[in-house]
Amino acid sequence: MDFELSDEQRAFAALADDFARNELEPHAADWDRDHYFPVETLHKAGGLGLCAIYTPESAGGLGLSRLDASIIFERLAMGCTSTTAFLTIHNMVTWMVASAGSAETWARWGEGLVSGRLLGSYCLTEPNAGSDAAALRTSARRDGDQYELNGSKMFISGAGSTQVLVVMARTGGEGAGGISAFALDADSPGIVYGRPEDKMGWNSQPTRTVTFERVRVPAGQRLGAEGEGFKLAMKGLDGGRINIASCSVGTAQQALNKARQYLQERSQFGCKLAEFQALQFSIADMATELVAARQLVRLAASRLDAGHPDATTYCAMAKRFATDAGFKVCDQALQLYGGYGYIREYPLERYLRDTRVHRILEGTNEIMRLLIARRVLAEGSGEL
Amino acid sequence: MDFELSDEQRAFAALADDFARNELEPHAADWDRDHYFPVETLHKAGGLGLCAIYTPESAGGLGLSRLDASIIFERLAMGCTSTTAFLTIHNMVTWMVASAGSAETWARWGEGLVSGRLLGSYCLTEPNAGSDAAALRTSARRDGDQYELNGSKMFISGAGSTQVLVVMARTGGEGAGGISAFALDADSPGIVYGRPEDKMGWNSQPTRTVTFERVRVPAGQRLGAEGEGFKLAMKGLDGGRINIASCSVGTAQQALNKARQYLQERSQFGCKLAEFQALQFSIADMATELVAARQLVRLAASRLDAGHPDATTYCAMAKRFATDAGFKVCDQALQLYGGYGYIREYPLERYLRDTRVHRILEGTNEIMRLLIARRVLAEGSGEL
Amino acid sequence: MDFELSDEQRAFAALADDFARNELEPHAADWDRDHYFPVETLHKAGGLGLCAIYTPESAGGLGLSRLDASIIFERLAMGCTSTTAFLTIHNMVTWMVASAGSAETWARWGEGLVSGRLLGSYCLTEPNAGSDAAALRTSARRDGDQYELNGSKMFISGAGSTQVLVVMARTGGEGAGGISAFALDADSPGIVYGRPEDKMGWNSQPTRTVTFERVRVPAGQRLGAEGEGFKLAMKGLDGGRINIASCSVGTAQQALNKARQYLQERSQFGCKLAEFQALQFSIADMATELVAARQLVRLAASRLDAGHPDATTYCAMAKRFATDAGFKVCDQALQLYGGYGYIREYPLERYLRDTRVHRILEGTNEIMRLLIARRVLAEGSGEL
Amino acid sequence: MDFELSDEQRAFAALADDFARNELEPHAADWDRDHYFPVETLHKAGGLGLCAIYTPESAGGLGLSRLDASIIFERLAMGCTSTTAFLTIHNMVTWMVASAGSAETWARWGEGLVSGRLLGSYCLTEPNAGSDAAALRTSARRDGDQYELNGSKMFISGAGSTQVLVVMARTGGEGAGGISAFALDADSPGIVYGRPEDKMGWNSQPTRTVTFERVRVPAGQRLGAEGEGFKLAMKGLDGGRINIASCSVGTAQQALNKARQYLQERSQFGCKLAEFQALQFSIADMATELVAARQLVRLAASRLDAGHPDATTYCAMAKRFATDAGFKVCDQALQLYGGYGYIREYPLERYLRDTRVHRILEGTNEIMRLLIARRVLAEGSGEL
Repeated sequence: MDFELSDEQRAFAALADDFARNELEPHAADWDRDHYFPVETLHKAGGLGLCAIYTPESAGGLGLSRLDASIIFERLAMGCTSTTAFLTIHNMVTWMVASAGSAETWARWGEGLVSGRLLGSYCLTEPNAGSDAAALRTSARRDGDQYELNGSKMFISGAGSTQVLVVMARTGGEGAGGISAFALDADSPGIVYGRPEDKMGWNSQPTRTVTFERVRVPAGQRLGAEGEGFKLAMKGLDGGRINIASCSVGTAQQALNKARQYLQERSQFGCKLAEFQALQFSIADMATELVAARQLVRLAASRLDAGHPDATTYCAMAKRFATDAGFKVCDQALQLYGGYGYIREYPLERYLRDTRVHRILEGTNEIMRLLIARRVLAEGSGEL
Repeated sequence: MDFELSDEQRAFAALADDFARNELEPHAADWDRDHYFPVETLHKAGGLGLCAIYTPESAGGLGLSRLDASIIFERLAMGCTSTTAFLTIHNMVTWMVASAGSAETWARWGEGLVSGRLLGSYCLTEPNAGSDAAALRTSARRDGDQYELNGSKMFISGAGSTQVLVVMARTGGEGAGGISAFALDADSPGIVYGRPEDKMGWNSQPTRTVTFERVRVPAGQRLGAEGEGFKLAMKGLDGGRINIASCSVGTAQQALNKARQYLQERSQFGCKLAEFQALQFSIADMATELVAARQLVRLAASRLDAGHPDATTYCAMAKRFATDAGFKVCDQALQLYGGYGYIREYPLERYLRDTRVHRILEGTNEIMRLLIARRVLAEGSGEL
Repeated sequence: MDFELSDEQRAFAALADDFARNELEPHAADWDRDHYFPVETLHKAGGLGLCAIYTPESAGGLGLSRLDASIIFERLAMGCTSTTAFLTIHNMVTWMVASAGSAETWARWGEGLVSGRLLGSYCLTEPNAGSDAAALRTSARRDGDQYELNGSKMFISGAGSTQVLVVMARTGGEGAGGISAFALDADSPGIVYGRPEDKMGWNSQPTRTVTFERVRVPAGQRLGAEGEGFKLAMKGLDGGRINIASCSVGTAQQALNKARQYLQERSQFGCKLAEFQALQFSIADMATELVAARQLVRLAASRLDAGHPDATTYCAMAKRFATDAGFKVCDQALQLYGGYGYIREYPLERYLRDTRVHRILEGTNEIMRLLIARRVLAEGSGEL
Repeated sequence: MDFELSDEQRAFAALADDFARNELEPHAADWDRDHYFPVETLHKAGGLGLCAIYTPESAGGLGLSRLDASIIFERLAMGCTSTTAFLTIHNMVTWMVASAGSAETWARWGEGLVSGRLLGSYCLTEPNAGSDAAALRTSARRDGDQYELNGSKMFISGAGSTQVLVVMARTGGEGAGGISAFALDADSPGIVYGRPEDKMGWNSQPTRTVTFERVRVPAGQRLGAEGEGFKLAMKGLDGGRINIASCSVGTAQQALNKARQYLQERSQFGCKLAEFQALQFSIADMATELVAARQLVRLAASRLDAGHPDATTYCAMAKRFATDAGFKVCDQALQLYGGYGYIREYPLERYLRDTRVHRILEGTNEIMRLLIARRVLAEGSGEL
């Protein structure tokens, strides 16, 4: 067992730190206020390889592991939670097209996705199937060497401002086995984008409903075989859960750092806040939860990398624990700031708003509990 | 012992319900989005007596108890947390001027405050004395039959859009005994208002810094005797804690009602959400916490009305418990809504943002713990 | 609304205080260690009316309300949780026989139960129907003017050392409507008692399995009409939940009192423990939870007294909240005692062991949640 | 980074599993009930090297790391928490004598301690210095080539039934620098043992007060130089915290396993308990907390092995988190068992009683918070 970062991991963490400090943090509050989607910044990230972190080197990506990616996303999220979260989605799209797309498909979009010149959105969730992916109803009917897509997707990050969509649609019968994945040009005829959702947070990425009205897609843009979409989606979700959990850990670390600094600087009743024992206890519990969350995320990422048979369970644990703990730490940091925590001049309230959605996305934390329990309670199953 | 509302209390609760449903709820989302301070609506509330709920009837108020007021504020908060919270502050101002102001002072502003034609702001908090009221530094130097005020107040609700200020300032030496209270015309020369703070929530009331630069105040506008300001402030705080706790309870009740309805209407995996046992458990705990919080608030209000020697302790308990529980219920209701809870089309995320500040205001919940502990640990003290 | 004890309630509370201090507390540790069932003390309690608190005066009881009883049991539990808990069960038996038994039945056992000369056990739970009362299988087959009872009951408090049993048995078909209640002589032929269960706590009352092998019971000893047993049991459970919740509140109050005293007396690192802010916060939260729990119990008791249509829901809330909060307070008090909290020389570890079962008994807290949720989620139901 | 056990670690885990299953679990309930100290079993453990796990191979130990030891203790605790906890203390004594004792001292006791033929007690805590080790008052006055010990120690595990004592005593001035460590023959003249403490749990190891009345100790039995005792004690504590945290993790794992099995076997309301969603959620949270706790313990152990500058902080985090989580898991497992959880026929209530003390021992969890906060809030300190 070894819990230390390798030299390479340290180097990537440092690179991510720099990017967070110089390119994200100075603008995060403005992007939040203005609901501004920083495409140039994402392009810059692409220049450093951060749009294709775990895409194979052979396809132009960094070829890193999920664990490496987790370390990087954690550091980036310290600069801007919302933008980093979008970047994790884009990375998933890049990886899906690289790993399941045809050579032709990759040729068309690969370089753009890797460099961040083109951005990708991932279209899974539907209005009537929040956490129940197998129930999705968007259809892709085969018609010669094309498919015709009809249906609606919602809560789609980046939609309307991205160039590539990965869409899960039903090509076959009911249930998980009837689902296939497609890569689409985002301005294909028949794609209608809703108005941007006004959200509690995650404001640096637009979220829209995407409606497909008789959208024609060449069969060659299918990702993988027919019926393999759900499997691909689930594989994506495991990684997505690690990613979003990493964003929670990074944001919480930043919140803790800010709170620590505030306690050291601010006085009340004639003492530095850092000298109040009850606030010390609060800081101690925040730090402990955070370190525990980070370890659990890294364990899960490592298991996902290794193809461990229980990887999905560990990813669910990591997502559940880290997003809950991350929110709690942000909430407590806001509290330590007192009134200043509540105003937008300081980043604490933004951390709270941004991390709140992590407990819902990529399968709600209630769904995580079902996944974990199913495994723990399986007949004849061993310990985790 | 009797836990039931009287007929009069039911009548006022029904009146508040109507006002909440017809005058507040339909506009609350817009006011939040537009940062709009609904002065006409507050004026309408005044027409029903709601700007002077516990001001004596002899002064034109409803002459109700703190307990009655709690019942009313709880129902109003179901319609709009932020506007109701401002109304509680205005009520405090009205009551302070009525109970501690000179006849002349009351003659000048009384009718306006009672009717809601004039609105009041309460200026206690200072930049360097968040929860440490006794440390305040705004000075009021006597000069003939006037005082000259110098200093700064921050986080002042309504400031810049109200007509009357109640200001705590230091007329004497250090500590609590040197503080006096004043009523001021809000556009007195020398009062400078900061720009509106951009806050996480409470957006239907502007919050500004108020700076006093050699502001002249006639001595007759002092509220109570010199040196009695801190006592008045503390008395105000006990009531203020009940009020803000009531706003948390009302908002949480509304959040629970919405969540209940959502679980009954929405299906997933082929079942109504209301049939999922784990979500039932969540609803049960929300309802239980809420009923417990409401009872504790009513107990404290009742003790405050009765002049119970431990009233401050009970108010602190009620504030701590109800604002924490209220936030938790709102947070959980948002979670039950899933992705819909995170978008502004639904009120859940607003409930969370609005109630978040209740754990900080009127003395942070950490200060509440200190107050409670001081009493519990006092030598020779009895049980609570 | 009125939250104060009446003069009569204060008088009964004082009486219970005296009894707790003089008759229970000095012996509680010994009874726990020796697994001693203090029948003489229970008899003494009967002499004060405490064996028939809410039995009508016409039947020789004190004729008090459930709310009054809650106040009394809370104070008694401060002296000995386990003995008081048994006393609550005995009170239920007395009340059931008084209110549902025939004149003849009451003539036989009434005076003995009221005076505490005879003690009663309540036989509801069965090995295969823990919280699922409607599923019970003990049968009572009518045979002329007698019934023949067959079956097993478990976790029966007092069994083997009491003189009267109230037994729920199936006289009809499946479900709740087939159940009837009976009063039995505890040494009727065919009743077999198991060995005393070795329990974590509640050691001053023996708990045994009771097996009925062709036990003959005169029909006149049926309590109420055939098929009314479940209704009687449910009515008993509402009250039983108030009672056990009251025992938790009282024990927690005692734990808090002990912890407070310990913090005032003990020093570490050169300071009295009471001066450590983090421990003050702990005490503050304990006190707040406790006051909230007490209020919720009293609200529920009052609703039960008034025949409120939602009384069962309020009783379930009170039981869930007060037994969880009570355990938490006891656990935290033990923690504040440090190593001394873990040894039997001090009562803290006993408080923890004794209150632990309250979260399980009288319907587990999970069952409470189901009851609460069912009501909250009922179509067209109003607020609680 | 690598989260997998090595082959050697798997082998030792399997050995510990066997020992737990065959030598500990079958007797644990009896040892608890009878307060029986299983010296033969400890001797058997010695035969497998388990009395000197991290004692160097050169001294006859297994020479394993703290991380290896954590893995072993976790598995052993699944069989008997209390006996394993004693074994961890004995291991510490063995290690202290081996690493800080003179050759002569080791020659006298080394083989016995390693083989488990002799057992060791660790005498640090004093009646007036629970968590404040630097304040200890037991004195060791130099007198020629001997020391004379006077003073009292309390809560000493194994005392009265062990052969070797390691004692911390004051040889110099106040504070940490005046403390030295000694190895003593447990039946040295002048050592007086108190009666065994009656404890809530940890019943398979006797706990006694040890009083030193003019006890003569040859100077050669000092462990390390004069004044180095506190440093040795602190080093021991870091490891001790890992050990006790490991015992909590192992016990919680066993509790979870039992609960899982119970849910799979037991039915209510016509369904297997494992099918109730709310209980599934409970199991999921237990498993998640447990995996997080285990990871944190292993991280800390690894940092301790590596001599990481923040090892003490990580050990404090692991101890705080794992002992709280472990207790919570045991408590919840008991709850899932319902009434059966409360009786001694099943091990659940024992798990609760045994793990309860882990939150107090080796520095209370409050002390852990202070240690963590001190580090987090240190000026100029980096992230953890």
